[in-house]
Amino acid sequence: MANSRFEYVRNFELPDQVLLNTWIVVRVDGRGFHKYVMRINIIECAKAVMQEFGDIFLAYGQSDEYSLVFTKTTNVYNRRSTKLASTVGSLFTSAFVFHWPEYFKSTPLTYPPSFDARVVSYPSIKVLYKVSYNPPPPVHLHILRSQNMRDYLSWRHVDCHINNLYNTCFWSLVHTGESTPQDAEALLRHTDAKAKHELLFSQFQVNYNDISPMFKRGSTLFRTPDKSIAIAHVDLIKDETFWITHIPLLTPRQDDH
Amino acid sequence: MANSRFEYVRNFELPDQVLLNTWIVVRVDGRGFHKYVMRINIIECAKAVMQEFGDIFLAYGQSDEYSLVFTKTTNVYNRRSTKLASTVGSLFTSAFVFHWPEYFKSTPLTYPPSFDARVVSYPSIKVLYKVSYNPPPPVHLHILRSQNMRDYLSWRHVDCHINNLYNTCFWSLVHTGESTPQDAEALLRHTDAKAKHELLFSQFQVNYNDISPMFKRGSTLFRTPDKSIAIAHVDLIKDETFWITHIPLLTPRQDDH
Amino acid sequence: MANSRFEYVRNFELPDQVLLNTWIVVRVDGRGFHKYVMRINIIECAKAVMQEFGDIFLAYGQSDEYSLVFTKTTNVYNRRSTKLASTVGSLFTSAFVFHWPEYFKSTPLTYPPSFDARVVSYPSIKVLYKVSYNPPPPVHLHILRSQNMRDYLSWRHVDCHINNLYNTCFWSLVHTGESTPQDAEALLRHTDAKAKHELLFSQFQVNYNDISPMFKRGSTLFRTPDKSIAIAHVDLIKDETFWITHIPLLTPRQDDH
Amino acid sequence: MANSRFEYVRNFELPDQVLLNTWIVVRVDGRGFHKYVMRINIIECAKAVMQEFGDIFLAYGQSDEYSLVFTKTTNVYNRRSTKLASTVGSLFTSAFVFHWPEYFKSTPLTYPPSFDARVVSYPSIKVLYKVSYNPPPPVHLHILRSQNMRDYLSWRHVDCHINNLYNTCFWSLVHTGESTPQDAEALLRHTDAKAKHELLFSQFQVNYNDISPMFKRGSTLFRTPDKSIAIAHVDLIKDETFWITHIPLLTPRQDDH
Repeated sequence: MANSRFEYVRNFELPDQVLLNTWIVVRVDGRGFHKYVMRINIIECAKAVMQEFGDIFLAYGQSDEYSLVFTKTTNVYNRRSTKLASTVGSLFTSAFVFHWPEYFKSTPLTYPPSFDARVVSYPSIKVLYKVSYNPPPPVHLHILRSQNMRDYLSWRHVDCHINNLYNTCFWSLVHTGESTPQDAEALLRHTDAKAKHELLFSQFQVNYNDISPMFKRGSTLFRTPDKSIAIAHVDLIKDETFWITHIPLLTPRQDDH
Repeated sequence: MANSRFEYVRNFELPDQVLLNTWIVVRVDGRGFHKYVMRINIIECAKAVMQEFGDIFLAYGQSDEYSLVFTKTTNVYNRRSTKLASTVGSLFTSAFVFHWPEYFKSTPLTYPPSFDARVVSYPSIKVLYKVSYNPPPPVHLHILRSQNMRDYLSWRHVDCHINNLYNTCFWSLVHTGESTPQDAEALLRHTDAKAKHELLFSQFQVNYNDISPMFKRGSTLFRTPDKSIAIAHVDLIKDETFWITHIPLLTPRQDDH
Repeated sequence: MANSRFEYVRNFELPDQVLLNTWIVVRVDGRGFHKYVMRINIIECAKAVMQEFGDIFLAYGQSDEYSLVFTKTTNVYNRRSTKLASTVGSLFTSAFVFHWPEYFKSTPLTYPPSFDARVVSYPSIKVLYKVSYNPPPPVHLHILRSQNMRDYLSWRHVDCHINNLYNTCFWSLVHTGESTPQDAEALLRHTDAKAKHELLFSQFQVNYNDISPMFKRGSTLFRTPDKSIAIAHVDLIKDETFWITHIPLLTPRQDDH
Repeated sequence: MANSRFEYVRNFELPDQVLLNTWIVVRVDGRGFHKYVMRINIIECAKAVMQEFGDIFLAYGQSDEYSLVFTKTTNVYNRRSTKLASTVGSLFTSAFVFHWPEYFKSTPLTYPPSFDARVVSYPSIKVLYKVSYNPPPPVHLHILRSQNMRDYLSWRHVDCHINNLYNTCFWSLVHTGESTPQDAEALLRHTDAKAKHELLFSQFQVNYNDISPMFKRGSTLFRTPDKSIAIAHVDLIKDETFWITHIPLLTPRQDDH
């Protein structure tokens, strides 16, 4: 608005757009959080961001982080990195503080919590095709291509599994008074998954398979064909548990370059 | 933490560091705010960010925006743009929602407000030297170099002045019932500063010079020699009103490359 | 090698790598060339670059430009843009001047000619699948996906066609003395392709279809399965004229993410 | 020129401009050169580039590299990195091959040599002020600020010195038949500058101080006030040997932001 001899300073802002036709992931991460407390709350935050940005078709969260995935054709904010990271991160943060009292009435926040956000983009995805041709074949056919975008989500999914198994053991040891946090850490340091399962079962009568899917597998928010937002706590690595039944998420018509 | 065959996806994150030895400005901006309401609150937010980041030596705010300036030698987060923008923006947002009830008890927030943040860097600054030499000259001598960093702050300062004069006229017309918002806008569209001053004085008996400096000049937060944070509502364009008395802000010893 | 107090200046070099798993195109362009003279020579230059960089699987040239395409998995020079552009451009230039006398003995260069180079990357490609399944279908099946990388080559191909048709008309008019360059330009300005074909045929008895494929379609260099470099002057837009018979170029095993 | 449905692919080119108001250095480097042979020739190449780009005010070369420095206000090619690197590198290369026969008639090039080029930018410089004030002081006064741009040149200058002293020893040992290259390398590996001076003097009666300044100090090309290009083989680290007598190079009026 203000035209002055100082206005030239605007030109020092450098462009930072993300390559076209790549999936854009904004991952929001808690800064120094007590991770255990907040899982329900951050689902609410991711949902608030998805409601504002129609081009986010899927979001996956676990622990104190959420990855929000924009369609590869999105043009929101001209695909500028810092604009995307700061806006998504700010809205997520705002929703977190705003909704906190609804979830944790008895333990008010004592300081303003914050998140960082980063932007990564992926050029390819594991595609599931339904091939149709003429004359028609005996069965529908899926051609699978294993690629980066799904690998990203698989990476976060593995992280969820490993962290949650560790944390379940750790807090079982600590909360029951069996160990100090230091002892628990030392005890768990060199155990593999199998040993952790056995520890839970033998010492705490916990069958890890019975743990809530939300904790074991994280929370996947996705946009349904009618544009509403649904949630699932499922395996995102295998094709069968989520992707085959949600093929349109990965191959929307408008992406068809 | 989790080592899996998916971990390669980390390498898709591209670096985005800001050039070394340049002042880094992070400007936080309200997204669609009712601008009038919030000036006190955002000073609090900027202060919270300055308390967390010791390398911010000055912050200037007006309307619904705040510019936070890092020293040119800062190495916080390796000077990565999206990390800086998202973290500063998130902390600012969090403080805004967190502190809101202290300022506006009677009007609770009805939805989570958010901010965007951008990063710009400036290579030079208007330097004020105190020259000392031998034999001593009759007076101390200032050599001034007009440069980018101070021009940036002057740019925001001019913006503050123009917006505030306009808004003072606009809301005077609207709140007193003299005009509809549309009429007020039409009336003010082609008036210059002088005409606006006269309008305020003749119709509303307001001498614009008597308006609070906080509104006329915005709010400058700066770090004092003892590292505490002070506030001033002063002219940032002229040398005499702020800079000459705060030379160390611009020429800290550690910046002396 | 030299360790001195000045060495810190190395850290001012900013990273500029290209996103992983995308095809990298380096396009080399003559700076202010007489375009007509040089087609054979630039094929030699592109070949020299392909001999040095084994990760270039295809190069397409026309007029005074050449586009060299690296496999999407290449890691040459850590995918740094300026390194790729400058090295490819320098080698191309060097070969141009070095080999000039072999082609144009009677017209020695009078000044050092130069090229610029740019880097663009593409995340996707028009893929041609050979689907095999069980029980086997009556015929092999191609699934086509139209995408960016092939569209880039098609774009340059269309450019080749339009420029060459125009230039053939232009130089026919000028060289036969029928028009001055200005008149020829004015005459051709608003003609479509059909009118240009007719002009060539009626005034110069030239059937454009008989023009050498090298001029009409440009020159495609590609790496054969035995890693040698072959050349073709073919339509790169349609599937049938080149791509279907060279499927491995687009889907090398090592790209299979 | 060609408007087609493929033209959208242009938008995949990402911007890469250098921050405003910073000195831009393009450093051109020989790829795998026999370094000894070429010093005169590369001065010619740098001069050709300076003749084409009026905004290069200084160039410093040694061994097989040249650093060309653009004024900080240059807007050539909109300050795009790859465009600058590729064009400067190409012109440098072209001049190298083009002028080769003039210098090395008896040893023609056997293959096309090439260079890479990189872009670095520096925000500050060691400034030399001439302070004038009223009433006039007894002497003119220089205020020195040690900064990045001059440090860059000092860095290359130190590199020149160290490499040249090493190479003088190495080739003295090898050319006289006293050592194999391997022995020479082993002999020199852990010697300091003083030991190298003594080796030259005692074994080869060479006083290193008598070596040509062009080899000891490299070649500085600079633009004189009348815009012609001059050359100097001087110390670029100290203020007195070059900079104080060429103050306008560093503080041209048009840079005065």
